[in-house]
Amino acid sequence: MGNLDGRHVSGWAALDGSGTLSPFQYTLRETAPNDVLIKVLFCGICHTDLHQLRNDYGASKYPMVAGHEVTGVVTEVGKKVKDFKEGDNVGVGCLVGSCQGCSPCKQDMEQYCSKRIWTYNDAYPDGRPTYGGFANFMIVDQSFVVRIPDNLPLDVAAPLLCAGITVYSPMKHFEMTESGKRCGVIGLGGVGHMAVKFAKAFGLHVTVISTSPSKEEEAKEVLGADEFLLSTSEEKMQAAVQSFDYILDTVPSPHPLDLYLSLLNINGKLVVLGAVPSPLHLATASLILGRRSIAGSFIGSIKETNEMLNFCAEKNVTCLIETITPDHLNESMQRLDKNDVRYRFVVDMSKSI
Amino acid sequence: MGNLDGRHVSGWAALDGSGTLSPFQYTLRETAPNDVLIKVLFCGICHTDLHQLRNDYGASKYPMVAGHEVTGVVTEVGKKVKDFKEGDNVGVGCLVGSCQGCSPCKQDMEQYCSKRIWTYNDAYPDGRPTYGGFANFMIVDQSFVVRIPDNLPLDVAAPLLCAGITVYSPMKHFEMTESGKRCGVIGLGGVGHMAVKFAKAFGLHVTVISTSPSKEEEAKEVLGADEFLLSTSEEKMQAAVQSFDYILDTVPSPHPLDLYLSLLNINGKLVVLGAVPSPLHLATASLILGRRSIAGSFIGSIKETNEMLNFCAEKNVTCLIETITPDHLNESMQRLDKNDVRYRFVVDMSKSI
Repeated sequence: MGNLDGRHVSGWAALDGSGTLSPFQYTLRETAPNDVLIKVLFCGICHTDLHQLRNDYGASKYPMVAGHEVTGVVTEVGKKVKDFKEGDNVGVGCLVGSCQGCSPCKQDMEQYCSKRIWTYNDAYPDGRPTYGGFANFMIVDQSFVVRIPDNLPLDVAAPLLCAGITVYSPMKHFEMTESGKRCGVIGLGGVGHMAVKFAKAFGLHVTVISTSPSKEEEAKEVLGADEFLLSTSEEKMQAAVQSFDYILDTVPSPHPLDLYLSLLNINGKLVVLGAVPSPLHLATASLILGRRSIAGSFIGSIKETNEMLNFCAEKNVTCLIETITPDHLNESMQRLDKNDVRYRFVVDMSKSI
Repeated sequence: MGNLDGRHVSGWAALDGSGTLSPFQYTLRETAPNDVLIKVLFCGICHTDLHQLRNDYGASKYPMVAGHEVTGVVTEVGKKVKDFKEGDNVGVGCLVGSCQGCSPCKQDMEQYCSKRIWTYNDAYPDGRPTYGGFANFMIVDQSFVVRIPDNLPLDVAAPLLCAGITVYSPMKHFEMTESGKRCGVIGLGGVGHMAVKFAKAFGLHVTVISTSPSKEEEAKEVLGADEFLLSTSEEKMQAAVQSFDYILDTVPSPHPLDLYLSLLNINGKLVVLGAVPSPLHLATASLILGRRSIAGSFIGSIKETNEMLNFCAEKNVTCLIETITPDHLNESMQRLDKNDVRYRFVVDMSKSI
């Protein structure tokens, strides 16, 4: 069933809020002039997938074919598509559409377009649902397809389309890339491990800040972090006050923001990359008495994603992944829920049933 | 008594936490090689003075001669002073010293030096207390004296040394000066009214955001704001969502940060200028879903203060003040406590007893 004609797709969908994925067949639209038909080879699993599948945000629609870290090969292009051709390695991230006429869209910030169309759990203007990368084919408007450089393997490149760009975009936008500067990375999950990798690739001195002493060895030996700071040690945190120029905060649960801000030097910048469900406490003096700033950022634009992929190809930045076959999707979701993965599951969709 | 020889000073001091000011005589140090002796003519009254006089921060030392928005005329200079001479119009702000050797000091960020010396309620390395501008003379190291351009009247220039630089420095540092951009100013006190004036001088479209409808007319007619937004009107706040590029938040008491962040456009920046005694609530999504940032900033450097004063002279930016004589200091402090001043009290110290 893996080799259908590209119109009849074999995917994996959740049918209700249990989030359990099971095989699901559907039909793609005909290839329109701006469309790129993609044979999906790999799809990363993001924590957001878990939340969406289980309706944690209360806005899930079923059946839901999740997956927004997609790499694959072009099998057909529409008449107006000039930048892609059959056989090209390509990727798709969190979005498959936007209005393309508003101010953000015109300034290559389509990720902030109020009419953006999510890769799944959303609908096209004609009402058709969007289905993501837990499937063997996708059809996507060329404006939302990126090119994967030839020397980036498609499996380890897949999570770059969400976890990777989530880190790269703010580092560039907020100018956190000056070689030799000291960067802290809070949290060492899917996004956190990419933060370490990008920070090192930019030439920063990287310290992983974590509540788990068990992560020290891996942070240094496997990911190449320069130092490790145990955030539960009052003594070590005190010694690290004002020692960082940048902090990449990847923790998506409540945490003591002011404590981390105290680690920033004068003019230091902290970027929150993980949305925290409840408000954090912010003492204004933490900002004022060091001219510090806190910023947030949401994925990145297609333009930035292409730029990032070229950077990754040049600097050999890839994700550490555990590859699974689609029949292990449900088991992997359960493990992801316990953060039992280093550092990203990637589904080999060529092994579709 | 107003014309002593510059060693015997006639000032006004609080003697205890009641904060009540009464005449107080003391002696200045001999003019050292780097010292500038200044006949104080005007001194603005900042809200911080009220807090310090009343020991609200718990670190007040008495007798306390407050005042850190000082303008006057040079009457004597030390042997090594080349940039100032007798008769020059000069100013002194919040600081009269720093280590001059640390990283912040070497980069013209001496306001963040950990050994900075406050203009009052502090001590020099030899243990002598610092006394501020509620006095007819001050003696200050030349590195902490700024030049007041000739066409800036000394009375309306005095509050620039604290309220003014508190606004100017972050606007420059965080690049919030692009002509034509839309700027909101929250709160219309001493700092807020300077924020409106600087924002207009930079060519921004300025909206005063306030809980008091009574401020609309004055904001527009007197201060030149382009618009007024009543923050207690849910309807008007909703209509203003994503309409500002910058927000200057001058409110020093608890306020709904996320509500104000929602007014920022994509890439919008909010700067907190007033230290709030209790933590604010911050929803990370407010930052993430618009690539927004929050920053803080503390007064400004001497270099920036000189730059600001030239800018003010060129653009005719001055403070709206109510001038008082020193014998009305206590009454003015009581009025300030009720925010009953538009927009800054300035004490005419030439009227010293």
